[in-house]
Amino acid sequence: MFDHPSDDLSCYTESEIINKIKAWLGTTTGLSPMGIGDDCAVFTPVPKQEYLVSTDALVYGTHFDSSISAQKAGNKLTLRNLSDIAAMGGQPKHATISIISSSKLSIKWLSDFFAGIKETSDQYGLKIVGGDLCRLEGPQFHAVMNIIGSSPRPILRNRAIAKDRIYVTGTLGGSILEKHYCFKPHLSAGQWLSSESLASSMVDITDGIAKELPFLLSDNTSASINLDNIPISDAAWHLSNQNKQIALKKAFCDGEDYELLFTLNSNADHPKFETQWSSRFPNVKLTQIGTIVPSQGADLIIDQSTQKPIDWILGFDHFKT
Amino acid sequence: MFDHPSDDLSCYTESEIINKIKAWLGTTTGLSPMGIGDDCAVFTPVPKQEYLVSTDALVYGTHFDSSISAQKAGNKLTLRNLSDIAAMGGQPKHATISIISSSKLSIKWLSDFFAGIKETSDQYGLKIVGGDLCRLEGPQFHAVMNIIGSSPRPILRNRAIAKDRIYVTGTLGGSILEKHYCFKPHLSAGQWLSSESLASSMVDITDGIAKELPFLLSDNTSASINLDNIPISDAAWHLSNQNKQIALKKAFCDGEDYELLFTLNSNADHPKFETQWSSRFPNVKLTQIGTIVPSQGADLIIDQSTQKPIDWILGFDHFKT
Repeated sequence: MFDHPSDDLSCYTESEIINKIKAWLGTTTGLSPMGIGDDCAVFTPVPKQEYLVSTDALVYGTHFDSSISAQKAGNKLTLRNLSDIAAMGGQPKHATISIISSSKLSIKWLSDFFAGIKETSDQYGLKIVGGDLCRLEGPQFHAVMNIIGSSPRPILRNRAIAKDRIYVTGTLGGSILEKHYCFKPHLSAGQWLSSESLASSMVDITDGIAKELPFLLSDNTSASINLDNIPISDAAWHLSNQNKQIALKKAFCDGEDYELLFTLNSNADHPKFETQWSSRFPNVKLTQIGTIVPSQGADLIIDQSTQKPIDWILGFDHFKT
Repeated sequence: MFDHPSDDLSCYTESEIINKIKAWLGTTTGLSPMGIGDDCAVFTPVPKQEYLVSTDALVYGTHFDSSISAQKAGNKLTLRNLSDIAAMGGQPKHATISIISSSKLSIKWLSDFFAGIKETSDQYGLKIVGGDLCRLEGPQFHAVMNIIGSSPRPILRNRAIAKDRIYVTGTLGGSILEKHYCFKPHLSAGQWLSSESLASSMVDITDGIAKELPFLLSDNTSASINLDNIPISDAAWHLSNQNKQIALKKAFCDGEDYELLFTLNSNADHPKFETQWSSRFPNVKLTQIGTIVPSQGADLIIDQSTQKPIDWILGFDHFKT
């Protein structure tokens, strides 16, 4: 099971593994939007009523360590899942939580973890309706949350077409300093983009825009990026010792920003859109970082100023080593 | 986090931990059936349309080991969750899968695991609509499945009242020999019990009837059991070397039988019910094992012949050591 170094998970990127799973499941996974691969799964329990399910795990040693309090870990598990709902333009409703834990876990720690889940759930109107407890050997703790949400019009991936403008919320990079456990999921902004049919495609940035930008693209398109417009965070500047090239790379490649990355429909009035955004979400910075263009061969991300591929970027990958 | 032996998870039963979580969450978990604690969570996305979500994990080292093929492990993850849907009288619809794995996991193993998921999903009309992949250090593999199902009338726990008859499907005990990875979830039987409003309360037997029987009871009731009627499995007889007392204990206390344990409404015509069952489900053995009686103090399970508590039984508990 674990001793096949020539063909184990570390030989493939996360996208490659997801594509394999799609192939393995065949017709058992439905056609998009009913198949796998977006921020949330979409299902239609009653005709014309689309629902979303997010699934996201929080693993001790991977997503948090003992430098973060149990309450902040509970906040983070909930916020991560809310961000997936936001990325579809959805409204969170009900959640389940699976706890897989060592029996040596302290009750005080678990109590604080649930206090964090409760705090964030109450803030966003989420109800915890069920779950599961399961024991594991060794000093380990994993929690998996699923949020069920509603969306009259889910905003999917791979729908951006040429001339759509590419926008990003907030600032990027260096989330490891603090943001990764205390960000704000952009639920209201996502819901507004959905209800007004403004966004052609949207994801939340969990693994860096270098990895997320290609997810926006429909066939035969590329993302043409204005590097001068990338909103680099103070944390990324700080971590790069004010070196612009390093800071830019952090903004492109660091994980866990949980900002929204989306494309505005090319037929939308973009100055009006930007004005409306500023008045509706005055605390959510919005930046146009590029435009979707017809495909330039196999290169999915292109520097707008040189028209050459941006090949110094590589998003975070969960498996490939 | 893991070094508090005087107050860690091993100091409490699973039920005690679930009650703590309920208290910690307070109003963030809704009132039953919208709260936590049943086989599935119940949620109502549209008025009068009740949906179910099951959450169940499969952990390498806990629920399976390398003596079972990857395909059978995939079968089992799916069957476990289907059994939870069956225990509410529901119909399975859509599922998500979270994989938390070492990057050293062999692709062949994962492919076989998904072949098992596909096989069982296809058999029961389940679509896999989404999921998540997450890396973990060390030779580990956990999968969490959530199934979303529908039920016009979910059959809940803690609803059995005095005079309701207690029934169990199949035979009990010794599932470790084989049944734990190749059982049949009783979906059709559960759906029939729900649609005809026959069952007042129902669970699936994951941790032994010793632990599950109390879940059926409403306040101030006990389960009065006819020990001569307990359907002991061949596997339990075999594992107990044909010793009746040991075999009976295995039937009460072994985990992972995944049979249905339910109470028939006292106003139902029970001979007619049993006749209808035999004709509808000729391959599903049905046994009345007792009756709900007014409470006899704190004892929840009573021997019908002696009227004394059955105190030699103890169900499987995930945490308490």
